[in-house]
Parts: sequence; C-alpha cells; structure tokens
Amino acid sequence: MHLTTHNPRVAFQGERGAFSEEAVFTLLGASAKPSPSATFESTFAALDGGRVDYALVPLENTLAGSIHRTYDLLLESKFHIIAEVIIPVVHNLIGCRGATLADVKIVQSHPVALSQCLRFFEQHPDIHRRNAEDTAGSVREVLEKGDPTVAAIAARRAAELYGGSILLEHLEDDPENYTRFVLLSPEPNETPDANKLSLATKLKHQPGALHSALGIFAKHKVNLSKIESRPLKGSPWEYRFYLDLEVGTATLMREVLREFQGLADETRVLGWYRAAQSPSNAELNSR
Amino acid sequence: MHLTTHNPRVAFQGERGAFSEEAVFTLLGASAKPSPSATFESTFAALDGGRVDYALVPLENTLAGSIHRTYDLLLESKFHIIAEVIIPVVHNLIGCRGATLADVKIVQSHPVALSQCLRFFEQHPDIHRRNAEDTAGSVREVLEKGDPTVAAIAARRAAELYGGSILLEHLEDDPENYTRFVLLSPEPNETPDANKLSLATKLKHQPGALHSALGIFAKHKVNLSKIESRPLKGSPWEYRFYLDLEVGTATLMREVLREFQGLADETRVLGWYRAAQSPSNAELNSR
Repeated sequence: MHLTTHNPRVAFQGERGAFSEEAVFTLLGASAKPSPSATFESTFAALDGGRVDYALVPLENTLAGSIHRTYDLLLESKFHIIAEVIIPVVHNLIGCRGATLADVKIVQSHPVALSQCLRFFEQHPDIHRRNAEDTAGSVREVLEKGDPTVAAIAARRAAELYGGSILLEHLEDDPENYTRFVLLSPEPNETPDANKLSLATKLKHQPGALHSALGIFAKHKVNLSKIESRPLKGSPWEYRFYLDLEVGTATLMREVLREFQGLADETRVLGWYRAAQSPSNAELNSR
Repeated sequence: MHLTTHNPRVAFQGERGAFSEEAVFTLLGASAKPSPSATFESTFAALDGGRVDYALVPLENTLAGSIHRTYDLLLESKFHIIAEVIIPVVHNLIGCRGATLADVKIVQSHPVALSQCLRFFEQHPDIHRRNAEDTAGSVREVLEKGDPTVAAIAARRAAELYGGSILLEHLEDDPENYTRFVLLSPEPNETPDANKLSLATKLKHQPGALHSALGIFAKHKVNLSKIESRPLKGSPWEYRFYLDLEVGTATLMREVLREFQGLADETRVLGWYRAAQSPSNAELNSR
C-alpha cells in the first residue's frame, strides 16, 4: 500500500484507546496520527472534508456479522477501500493503579463489551455491571474518579493511554472474536500486490440471476470469500449483494469485472486491495 | 400453522413490554402466553426444558443485519422454524402520567434504541441520553421512580403495560426498521401452505462450489430471498451459508433439497414454513 504521507492522519470512530485506534497502529505503524471522531457519520465527514488523509472503519465482526451502518456510509460516499486489517477483540479489566481484582465491586463498559464477558460476571457474582457509552471512555472515567472499587472493560491500549492497571486479561468469552477494519481513501489504490476485490451490486430478484453472476467467478476460478444479500430499501423485489473476491492479478480482476458488469444492474467497486493475513497470524503480531 | 395448544406458552428474550413480546401477540394473537427470559441462551433453554411450547427469537433486522447469536443457538439446538413474523420497530418516548415533553431532561433506553433516534436528540439538545439494559425495563424504572424529568424510549406496549404516557411517537430516524422473528418448536411444521425453506449449509471454500449449488435453484426456478456466508470457527477455508428459498410446493421442496444435499458437505434444514407478509402489510396490521 502506498501512503500519501509519512504521518498519515486517520479518522476513527470512538475515543482515544478504542479498538479502532489500536487497528490504526496495527495497520499503519506507530507514525500514524489517529483522529478520534464521535460517530461513524463524523468519521466519514472528516475524510470528506479533507481534515484527515484516511478513515479506518469496522466492516464486520466474527460474532456480530456485517456492520451495515459503515457499509451504507461507504456506498453513499465515493471512497475506496485501499487496505484491510483484522484484529482480535481482547477484553481487559482495567482499574486504578494500586487496585486489585478483590477491590472491584462495579465494572463499566459499552454494553456490547459487557455482553461478551458473561463468564467473568458468572464467576464474580458480587460484581455489578454498569452500561457506559464507550469502552475506552469508561477507562478514562474510572481513572479520573480514582475509586478502586470501580473498573472498566476495554482494550489494552486504553490502560496504557490513561495510566490504568490491567487487573485481568482475556475476559472475552469467545476467543474467536475478530473485527475486520478497512482503510478508506478518496483515491483508489495503486498497490501492485492487490489480490482482493470488494463489490456491491444490485441484482434482480429472479431465479438464476445470482447463479449466472457466480458463473463468471467459477469460470475464472475466482474464490468468493464473502457473499451477503441485503434487501434494498423501498424495492422489495431487489437485493444488494456484497461480494469479496480473491483475484490473483489486476488483469484477471479487470476481465472478471467487465463480464460481471454486463450481467448486474449496477455494480460499485468498493475496493481493490491486499487481503489481510489470517486472524491467527494477526493475533501473533498484534500490539 | 397448527399450534399444539390454544394458549401457547412462548419464551422470548427481554422484559415484559419488549418488541419481542409485541411480536408474540402479532403472530399468535391475544391468547398467547409470552414468557420473558433474560438472555437468548435462557430463551432456548426454556424451550429445551419443556417450560414453554415455543420460543420466538429475532433472526435479522433491516438495519443491523443477521443476529448471529440466535443463528448459532438455533444451529446448536434441534429446533425447527415453524413460522415467521416481521414487525416494524417503532420507538416511542414514554414518561410518567401527567409529564409533558417540556418536562423531560433525561431519556434512557437500550443503547441500540438510543442510536436509532439521533434526530430526536439533535432536535432536543438539552435532553441527556442515558444507557440502560433494556427498552421496556427502562419504562418500568421511569414509572417506578415517578420523576417527570426522566423518560424512556420503548415500544408502545411497554407504555400500556406499565401505565406510562406516550409523550411522542415515531422517534426512529429510519422508518424502514423491521425485525424478522421466527417461531421455534421442538417438532417440525406440518402446515400445508408452507412456501419458505431456510437452510444452513457448509460448502468447501473452492471456486464454483456455491455456483453449482445455486444451479439447482436456478434449474427449478426457486428464488433465493437470503444468502449470507459466515466463516466457520476453526476452519479458515470453510464457510457456512445461510439460505432462504421461496419454494412453491412441498414436492418441489423435497426434490430441491435432495439434489442440494448431494452437493453440499452438510446441510441442516432450519425450517419449512409460511413466508410472512411483506413489511408494509405487517405495519398496517401491527398492534
């Protein structure tokens, strides 16, 4: 991937110390300048307004599936996926410096994070759960208040950033909890080692439409690594499909795309980029 | 659909007054006996233990996509989908009796519900958001405390059940917010008007595998109304596909299934049942 600057400014959704910020550094290295944004909408707006060079947004999670809000915003935008990174979601119990697990009476975090650590709460029935807006923001609050009986669940980075103590690691119930993030740019990628094509396409809701489209991929021995149908708003008989394809070369990619566009009603190339390493490798290399 | 009892006991996830309880009545009528359950796991356990006749669980939402936790639990179980219902998610602002919108300073609800009513919060910048465990549970809490400055966002039914006032209707930003619920039974359905087949199948991650499988549906002019790939845990080169098929008759369904099972590694019939009416009709008929 060719970056346009040495210290790329990258918008992400969440507070400093969020999993998304961790993903920025994993993908782009320590010289990246992550720029927190309150919502997905404002993350896209930051890139649209030129206040950042790129945006990094989550597109899917192994437990929760596709994140349709970011797909929708991507389709509404003219941005291109130029890279992807898959990072493990590792939950840590983070408290004030000097606090111990035995002190903790209340644990706060985003409700999705809390719901992914149910075994911990079963093993510690005296600890009360408290919903909060954000994982990293919970760590910041806990540290500000300095009460050793209150802890938060968040990424390791949040502890480092706000100066908290990690009281317990790997609270997540399911170790196969990964999020796939994509790096968005106003310009398409020019990387020579691209091998993954992401498409959004409309197909008529009629027998055989998808079968014909997939015939093109079968003919060229192109692997589908994702397919998902989504009903189109206001068009009950039309579907949008999200497709991720493993395509060896740019020449093959152009040929497959040319044939496919002849069949589909409307096709948007979301990106042509290098596929991420598999999650297990990503875990070994995670910060 | 043939129900085994006149007053079927139906497990659902959430508190009384939740959208899921509304879905139970929409599907089964006023004689149904909904039985609240804290988690999806305990909802399935209630049916497994024979404490209820059926369970009604959400399988997908137009904004959030598939609900993978319920798909996973369904696959782990031996239950069958015997019916489906699609209900609009309509958010209401619910306060104490006598309260008015002008009194409200804090609005609490489940964070997903809050995030679906952003326009309301933009229009009322003085109103503070508060995350809570549950939509209907928030209404119960608001009513118990009796503080007119605190309101909740939830389904209409929660207001009726707990005796609250609806201060404002249709807070949802997106009117096309529907949830598809399925009714699960330990026994398969015997309804003569079934026309929808839901499958979960494993296919090898190789070019053409899905194309061949879809060829069977194309040959028989069977429409796909849903397709979604999901990576299999621990098998990075295998995928599970979720398929919903529109099949006219039981005879055709058996033939399609026979041919399909010859191609796929492993196929589980999730259900053979009557397709729900379209969302727009569902809305007209909603309670």
